[in-house]
Formats: sequence, structure tokens, C-alpha cells
Amino acid sequence: MGDNLVYKILKNHLVEGTIETGKEIGIKIDRTLTQDSTGTMAYLQLEAMGIDKVKTKKSVAFIDHNMLQQGFENADDHKFIQTVASKYGVYFSKPGNGICHQVFLERFSVPGDTLIGSDSHTPTSGGVGMLAMGAGGLDVALAMGGGAYYINTPKVCKINLIGKLQPMVAAKDIILEVLRRLTVKGGVSRVFEYAGEGVKTLSVPERATITNMGAELGATTSIFPSDEKTLEYFKAQGREEDWIEFKPDEDAVYDEEVTIDLNELKPLAAKPHSPDNVEEVESIGKIKVDQVAIGSCTNSSYEDLMKVAKILKGKKVHSDVSLVIAPGSRQVMEMIARNGALGDIISAGARILENSCGPCIGMGQAPGTDGVSLRTFNRNFYGRSGTLTAKVYLVSPETAAVSAINGYLTDPRECNIDIKIEMPKEFLIDDSMIIKPAEEGEDVEVVRGPNIKPFPVNKPLGEEVSGKVLIKVEDNITTDHIMPSNSKLLPFRSNIPYLAEYCFNTVDEEFPKRAKENNGGIIVAGNNYGQGSSREHAALAPLYLGVRAVIAKSFARIHKANLINNGIIPMEFEAEVDYDKVGLLDELVITNIQSALVNGKAMIKNVTNGTFFNAYINLSEKEIEVIKAGGRLNYVKVAI
Amino acid sequence: MGDNLVYKILKNHLVEGTIETGKEIGIKIDRTLTQDSTGTMAYLQLEAMGIDKVKTKKSVAFIDHNMLQQGFENADDHKFIQTVASKYGVYFSKPGNGICHQVFLERFSVPGDTLIGSDSHTPTSGGVGMLAMGAGGLDVALAMGGGAYYINTPKVCKINLIGKLQPMVAAKDIILEVLRRLTVKGGVSRVFEYAGEGVKTLSVPERATITNMGAELGATTSIFPSDEKTLEYFKAQGREEDWIEFKPDEDAVYDEEVTIDLNELKPLAAKPHSPDNVEEVESIGKIKVDQVAIGSCTNSSYEDLMKVAKILKGKKVHSDVSLVIAPGSRQVMEMIARNGALGDIISAGARILENSCGPCIGMGQAPGTDGVSLRTFNRNFYGRSGTLTAKVYLVSPETAAVSAINGYLTDPRECNIDIKIEMPKEFLIDDSMIIKPAEEGEDVEVVRGPNIKPFPVNKPLGEEVSGKVLIKVEDNITTDHIMPSNSKLLPFRSNIPYLAEYCFNTVDEEFPKRAKENNGGIIVAGNNYGQGSSREHAALAPLYLGVRAVIAKSFARIHKANLINNGIIPMEFEAEVDYDKVGLLDELVITNIQSALVNGKAMIKNVTNGTFFNAYINLSEKEIEVIKAGGRLNYVKVAI
Repeated sequence: MGDNLVYKILKNHLVEGTIETGKEIGIKIDRTLTQDSTGTMAYLQLEAMGIDKVKTKKSVAFIDHNMLQQGFENADDHKFIQTVASKYGVYFSKPGNGICHQVFLERFSVPGDTLIGSDSHTPTSGGVGMLAMGAGGLDVALAMGGGAYYINTPKVCKINLIGKLQPMVAAKDIILEVLRRLTVKGGVSRVFEYAGEGVKTLSVPERATITNMGAELGATTSIFPSDEKTLEYFKAQGREEDWIEFKPDEDAVYDEEVTIDLNELKPLAAKPHSPDNVEEVESIGKIKVDQVAIGSCTNSSYEDLMKVAKILKGKKVHSDVSLVIAPGSRQVMEMIARNGALGDIISAGARILENSCGPCIGMGQAPGTDGVSLRTFNRNFYGRSGTLTAKVYLVSPETAAVSAINGYLTDPRECNIDIKIEMPKEFLIDDSMIIKPAEEGEDVEVVRGPNIKPFPVNKPLGEEVSGKVLIKVEDNITTDHIMPSNSKLLPFRSNIPYLAEYCFNTVDEEFPKRAKENNGGIIVAGNNYGQGSSREHAALAPLYLGVRAVIAKSFARIHKANLINNGIIPMEFEAEVDYDKVGLLDELVITNIQSALVNGKAMIKNVTNGTFFNAYINLSEKEIEVIKAGGRLNYVKVAI
Repeated sequence: MGDNLVYKILKNHLVEGTIETGKEIGIKIDRTLTQDSTGTMAYLQLEAMGIDKVKTKKSVAFIDHNMLQQGFENADDHKFIQTVASKYGVYFSKPGNGICHQVFLERFSVPGDTLIGSDSHTPTSGGVGMLAMGAGGLDVALAMGGGAYYINTPKVCKINLIGKLQPMVAAKDIILEVLRRLTVKGGVSRVFEYAGEGVKTLSVPERATITNMGAELGATTSIFPSDEKTLEYFKAQGREEDWIEFKPDEDAVYDEEVTIDLNELKPLAAKPHSPDNVEEVESIGKIKVDQVAIGSCTNSSYEDLMKVAKILKGKKVHSDVSLVIAPGSRQVMEMIARNGALGDIISAGARILENSCGPCIGMGQAPGTDGVSLRTFNRNFYGRSGTLTAKVYLVSPETAAVSAINGYLTDPRECNIDIKIEMPKEFLIDDSMIIKPAEEGEDVEVVRGPNIKPFPVNKPLGEEVSGKVLIKVEDNITTDHIMPSNSKLLPFRSNIPYLAEYCFNTVDEEFPKRAKENNGGIIVAGNNYGQGSSREHAALAPLYLGVRAVIAKSFARIHKANLINNGIIPMEFEAEVDYDKVGLLDELVITNIQSALVNGKAMIKNVTNGTFFNAYINLSEKEIEVIKAGGRLNYVKVAI
């Protein structure tokens, strides 16, 4: 029985445990990336570990989130990251060089290698055959320090692509189709491995769109083989030496298989407010559009922008539409500036934003009240755009561009233009905005602005966990709900005390106050708790507010890991009906938590109504030790 | 005795009064402009006037301030302005089309005509021989309604330019030299008229840089003749029909004259925190620079950006510097995108911002803590950058670009490059982002978002004015001090109740609370009170908080007009020493305010310390009526 791509990489990188579905394994991490909004915390943690220099093959620190810079905080964070990166041997990608995932794909991705990044869309580089995973900042810090990364061995689901996309149907529509079929929970504990004849028809940027947005399935990651198309891409990036052919064995086995016939696909849109709320564009109908936004780590490649330019050329954006476009990297930006495409885009009436995450993370360009916004992004969670009443639809660049001209949601197949793009034989290569670390790190002074505060660290676990239910939330709560990340809060990612005042702000403004008044307590939640962005702050802010445990119907992978890393116990209702028996401010007590950890199950007493219920504690042995130590950093220090 | 340019225009447009220095006159306004941060209020006031259609030759509404859009408020304001403009016959320049002054210069300026705009840098179009003045939003609304604009007949100061600028010395250095000599108060009650052989050596964009920043002198406006150079510019803009030759009479007389020898000028910089704190770059020395920002309505023309591109070409921005560049208009942006200059700028490592005011108004790109920022902008007031500890230097694009490469403040003459630019024979003309108003305005529905609140209106004046001193401030208080306009507050320009909570925030956070607790009162100030931005909100917020009078040593022109327009009495200490005898929270009473208005002088009783002092009330007859009515809108309504 042959190996699939995932197993090949896992076997090559295994440092602990046995590769068996569901079992925890530790794998060696070759490369890491951070972005600025999670990066400040990750580097503070790296500093706390007391090492001299990172031990990965290469680690890169990007600035792409906090680039509006409305106070000193952002520039201070950039300077902190630049100097701390230089000190510890990390490459620094200057603000303006591009979005981490796009730049990593272009300049740093390596087939067959492992990558973790403190951003949930790190799987983007799965498009060239990396095992690329989003992780908490602490995990990334630990990996930079040479530590293994621990995951449960995932199921590997083969996505068998057959046929070929029709004109004006895009890679974005493939991943939207996967989301339609499998939902935002469909990827939990899984890696999606793309295979089949259809793969050959897709360019690397198209593959990267798919692996990028695989994050929305809740998947551990997604991966494509590294083939001739990949080689062409690496050649054009002047990095042929980084390329290897990387294919599954002929007789590779998979846990599951899904087949998608590309011929049959039509342009799709994810309607408000979930990436899996997918419908065909033609069936949604010609709704009037107020804003169109093209860019983000999902769809901001050279290929994407060239297609958009071809559609816009000689046309004008509708007078009632604001079209904003953010190229994914300086490479893309300079190339389209040099070949005339940017001129065509400007001529059409588009607004050109910086090479950054921008509106995708609510960092500017919030739609107006009740505004309809079409976006080529990966998430349309409620409120993420910065406007609670906005209606955000996720679409392909083709659908976005054609709709911007018409002023209403349009099936791009109505537009009869040939937008086929020749991938360049040579990309424009200029790494001058990637600053190499200092030769002698010890000479570098780390510059720390006044907004950079110490991060909270948990205490070792005692014999009992108790506390009031501080909040009770529904299914599919995202990390955006737990720790909102709008443009007003993002500058405070290195300041947990400030940030904590806004914890659960969009769900229940009273939460921080209630948490403080009750000296912390317990969170009760529904299914898929903590989906979405990888942000560790969704664990750090609750930790700061004294949260000791989360009892949910089920957890999203990265958030569960972040809770464990911070010593907050993740528990799952044995019987989902028990969820209904717990009320806000009920007093819960778990008396023998130490043995409950070992048994994998806790009996919880609801003191308020005198009932009992059980909850699973699904932790590996290592995770149990981490919880006992009061979080990963304590654990590592003890281990050292 | 012949006429100067100013008198020619005043005579052509006089509708009331006599042209005699210091005497109030009413002049007909041909054209108006608004930007979005003052525009929402201006159009609310226009609506309140109950007219069908604007009566100017042409009025244009621009969107250039609030373009970060971090909540629904900005997009709502844009939509409000777009719809209200369409209804009332106003042209609408979409967000992304550029900065109002740059676009107005390019596409709407007309030599010999009058222009008022709700932005203090409206004098920019003085570069082509317009009499172009910054005004309060209400003045602009009244002018759109066909009303005259009232000013005191200014002194006309001839600035005699002789010689020719040396290489790498810029128009910016000319206006910095004027500021060095005359200070930020030197222009009060004056228009600066540029003349002499040196004028012919300056292009229209260079002239516009000078007239733009004439605002920093406190001048009513600045003006250049319209000559062959102006004709070339109009031809290249495809607007030859809008051009007239417009020159002063050979024997024109002036009230004052200043001569500047261009040959002698060196690169200059305005040091923190005032535009008149000017010193030669070479004498300041090679201070380390953290940020360089190029753009704003002062220096964002095609010519400016081309010079910057030539300097940057083949070079790289220093690794410790963040260089941000915002072209002034879509015309500039598309032209440099099409001719390769933008490619060169990106290649050097610059970050490209939208065609908007951006960092000049603190809308993003705040420097880090203690950061040194070189900016080609027009103001470096304390805190305006968004970072209180930042040190902002105002410099030419040449100085900015060379310094960005070196990483320290550099005299650009050290850089031995020929950056002479041929002005294009044809600019790229595309007005498709300027939306014509509806043919039938009554059919247009004005869209009003929930953040757009009614504006405060004063009550008619009684027999007595009394109240406590709510705040006592020093000399040169700017409208930025009175009503801060940082990126967090700018979105609330249509919401005075919200904004008022931040009135005087950078000077004294307690002011709004104190004003409310004392049911309003009186402001005491030093010289040149209300300099800087034209923002009417610096009168509207105090009005909302119950301010009834301001007693200052002297006033800046536009702010004084804004106070009068809102029925707040501007008074000037007869003896400056009396300023020292008034303390915070002293109770002041003026018993016979009605006769004091007529007498031009009030006796003020300080009830707290039992003293008396006199203050001038320098108002025209019309202004007295306006104050009595409780503001201009009440006055106009009574008049109708």
C-alpha cells in the first residue's frame, strides 16, 4: 500500500509518536512564518524561551495586517518585529512587500517541506506540495526554537479533480464547491489532498487559492502534488533549485475520497455570513452591489490581477460601485505596473490599496450601512468587514470584476472576453524588501514600544476547577467572535490587557466585566467552537480574564490547541443535551480534575441547579502535561 | 494707478461694500468645492436652506479625506454626498479620483474666477490665477445657494520672485522661505500675489505648491498670474477654452512687497511642530529618519511624482525607512503607471497609498514612538500625524526622496542626478470618475446613514452674555487642537454630539465634561487662535457644548468667520496683559452685549476676582446681524 503526499511528509518529519489516524504525533518543522498581528506575541514568547537563534531551515516575519497605522502602535510593532527578527535569525519582509502567504508562496515555499505559520491561511503553500499549517503563535515560537509541532494524525481525504474548468469559472469556484459539499466543519481532523487529471489543468496560483481557502473547511491543511506546473512556477521565480517532484505513490491510499468534475462547475458565491453558504451566482440573481473588493491572500496573484485587468480594460466601474483592489505582493504590483495592466485597472476607476490584507481583515473599506460587498476573500463572517449590517459575498475575481462594471452581481459567463493568461516565463524578482537577519544577533537591540505589554501566563493546575458560566454561546463561534479583530483592535495585539476589554464584544459586551466580577470562570459553547482565524489572542484574552475551561459540543482544531497551549482546559459534552441544562452564571465544579484528565472524562457538578453531567477531555499525554503545567511555555521551561 | 490681480477679481465680483483695506465686502462666488470631512455638514446646511439647485457656475463635491473606511460611517457619508450632490446639481468626484485641490486644479480651475472651498488649502487653484479661498462649510453652502461671500478687503502683498531655482531646490523651498520670513501669522488679512521674472520659471504645479501652502501663513489666499505657462497647462489638460490671460496692470500697486531671490534659495525644512519653524536642511544635519511620506495636496502632482521617480530609479529605500507615496489624483496615478515611473517607485521599495489626503490628515501612517518623519505635506502641527511623540519635518519631494534612500535627512543637492521634467504636452484626460448631477434633481433620493445627525443651531442673542471660563489656551492654537481630526474622529464629522466629546482633547481632556457641568461658557485664548484647517467643526463642537464667546488676543481668519457663522462672539483683548488676569473657571459677565456689538467694544466683568477689562468686537454690520440672529443660518432664514 503506497503513501499519499501527507503520509510521505509526516514520515519524513516524524520525531515522536506513531502515524495512525487520530493519534498525536510530533513532527519536525522546516520553516515558519509569522504575520504582524500574531507575530508580536510569538516573538515575545520566543524571547521568553531564552534561545540564541532560530533552529528552522528558514523563518520569515511578515508585516501585512496592521498597515493602516493610525497610531504609534503599528509602527512600533513593525520595529519590534524587525529588530527581534534580526536578533534571532529571522528574515523580515518589510511592510509593502506583500501578504505573507502570497510572498511565501512566491519566494519561500519548498515542496515536501513542513511549514507552520501563525495565521490560519498558512496552508496556501500547500499549493506547491508543502505540508503547511496554521498554528498558534506559541507553536510557531516553539518550532522556531527547534521544538516539534504536535498534531493528531489527520484523515487524508482525496479530492479527485476531473475535467477542466470552463471559461470564466475559476479555482475559487472549486473551493467554494468543496465548501458547499462539506461545510465549514467538513475538514475537521482532515487534510485534503488534491489529485486527478484536473490538477494538471491548474496553475500554482490557482492551486494556492484552493489550499488557502481549505482553511474554511476546518481542515488541518490541504495539499497539491509538485509536478511540471510547479516546476514551471519555480523556474519563473528563479528558484528551480528549491523544486522537487513530489507525487503520491501510484497505489496511495486515502481515508476518504470526493470527486469534483470541473467541467460541470459554474460560478459560485458564498452568501452572508458563512463561507459554506454557497449558491450558484446565476441562481442568486442580479442583486445590486455597492462595493467590490479584489485581493487578499486568496486571490491576489499575478494571474488573478491580470484576469481582472483584462475584464476591466476599456470599461468603467459602475458609478454606484466602489471597486478596491489590493495586489498580493510587491512582485505582482510591480509586474502589473510595468506591463500596463495596472494602468487599465486604474483607468476603469478602481481604487488601488496597498499590498496587504486590508479589507479582508476589516482593516479599512468597511461597506456602508446594509451595503452589499462582493469580495474575492476567504471569509464573510458576520461583522468581519467592519460593518455589522453589511452583506458580504465571496466570489471569484472574474465574478467580482464583471459585477463591478455592471453594478449588480453578474455571472461572469455573460461577459464574452478571452481572459486566458500566459503565466510569465520569468517573474520580476527583487527581494530587496526582505531584510536578512544580522550576522551577529547579540549586537542587535530589540526596540520595544510602550504598547508592547507582557503576555499572561497561566498557573499550574490544582486539584479542582470551578467557576461560574461566564458566557454561553451557540454553534460555529469563530475566533472573530471571541476576540474581535477589527481595525480599532488590531493595533493592540501586543497589549492583552487592553484587548481583553473587547473579548466577545460582538456577542456580549458585558463578558469582560462579568468575567472580572466573578474572578474568571468557564465558557460554555456549541459545536465547532473557535473556527476561523488562528489567532492565539482568542485564548490569551480569556486567560487574562480568568477563564479556566471551555465546555463545548466540539472544537475547531487550532483554537483547541491554543487553549491547551495556554492551560485552559477544553472539554466536550458527552451528551449534547446537557448543553441545554447549563445556564449563564451557573456555578460549575470539577473536583478531581487531575484524574479526570487521565481518564479523559470529567464529571461536572452544576451547583446552581444541583445536577451533574459528563464531559470528555480529549487530550494526548503530552497535552495533559501541558495543561497540568498551566500551559506550554511553563511546560517547556520545566522540560528544559 | 493700476490694479493688481486681487483687486481685478474683487472688482469683477463685488456685490456689496467698498473695496478698501479692512472693509467688509461681499463678492460673488463662481465655483465651489467641498471635501467629505467638511462636506457632509455643508450639504446638510444646503438642504436646510430650501433651494432646488446650486446657483454657482460649477460646484464639485470631492471624497478624499475619509477613505480608510473603518466603519459604515465613511461609506454612508460618501453615499450621502453622492446623492445630495446629484439632487442639487453638484458634480461628484468619486473616492479614488484624487485629492480635491489637485483634481480641481487639473480639471476645474479657471483663471480670473472666484472659488471658495470647505478646506483651508483651497488657495491651491490660485496657482492658475483664481481667487481661491478656504471657507467654512456654511459659507460654501450659502455660496452654492447664490449668496455672496463676505471678507474684509485684504492687504495685497506682492511677492517678487527674481532669478531661478538651482537644481534640487524646489517650489516647496520657496514657500518654506516665505514662512520662515513671515511666520504663520504673517499672512493674516493679506493676499499674497506672486510677481516678477521668477514666476515665468515656475510651472503651474510648482505655483500651486506655493499657493497651497500659503494657507500656513494665515493668508486669505495667494495668487499667481495666468500666463503662457498657464496656457500650456490648460492646453495639456484639454481645457484651452477655460484659459484667459490674467495679469496685473503694469502700474499695479500693492500694500506691501517682499522680494525673494530664487538663485539664493537652498533646500529647507520646517522642523517640529510648526510650518514656520524653518531651517536649511544642510544646517539641521543628518538626523536619522524612520519614515518618509510623499503626497498631499501640496506635492502630489505629476511633476512631483516624476521627480521622485527619477531620484528613486535604480535605488532602494533604506532598510530602516518606511517610504509611503500617495499620488494626488487618478490622472497622476494612471500617467505614472503607464510611463514606467510607478514601476520605478515600487521597485525602490515605496509603499503606494491611495490618491487621497491620507497621512497628511493623520489618516493612517502614524509614525512610531519618537519617530522622525519627513513629509512633503503642508502641516506638522503637534499630534497631527497621529503620534504625539513623532517629529515631523516638512520638506520638498526632492529632499524626501533622497533622504529615504540614505536613511537620514539629506540635502538633495548631494544627489547628482538630473531630474528635470518635461511637462507633458497632453495629460491623460479621463473624467469618468466625476459623476454629473441628475438632470431632474427632485427625483433623486438622498441616502442618509444612521451616523448623520442634525447639526446644532444657536439661539438669537439676548441682552447679556455670561459664563465661566471653560478653558484658557496659549498662542497659535490650531483648529486641530480645538477639534482634533485624527483617524478615529474623522468618520464622525456628520455627528457633532459624538465629536464634541473630543473637543480640545489633546489640550485638556476634561473640557467637554467641564463645559457640560457649567452649562457652557467662554473660551479664553492667546494670539492667532484657530489657525490651520478651515474646519467648521472647531466652531460647531464648542457651540454644541454651549460656548457663547471666545476672548482671544487675536484670531485666524477662517475660524473667526466660522465662530460668527455659528453665533459665537469673537472678542479680542484690548490690552493683552488682561489675558493674564483671567483664570480657569472665572465667571465672566457682559451685561450690555447688544450695545457692545454696535460699539465694537465690550466691558467684561470678572465676577470671580471683581475686576473689569475691555475687549474689542471687530465685526462688520452684517456680522453683527449674524451674531444677533444666533448664526448665519438663522440670519439667512430671517432674511428670506
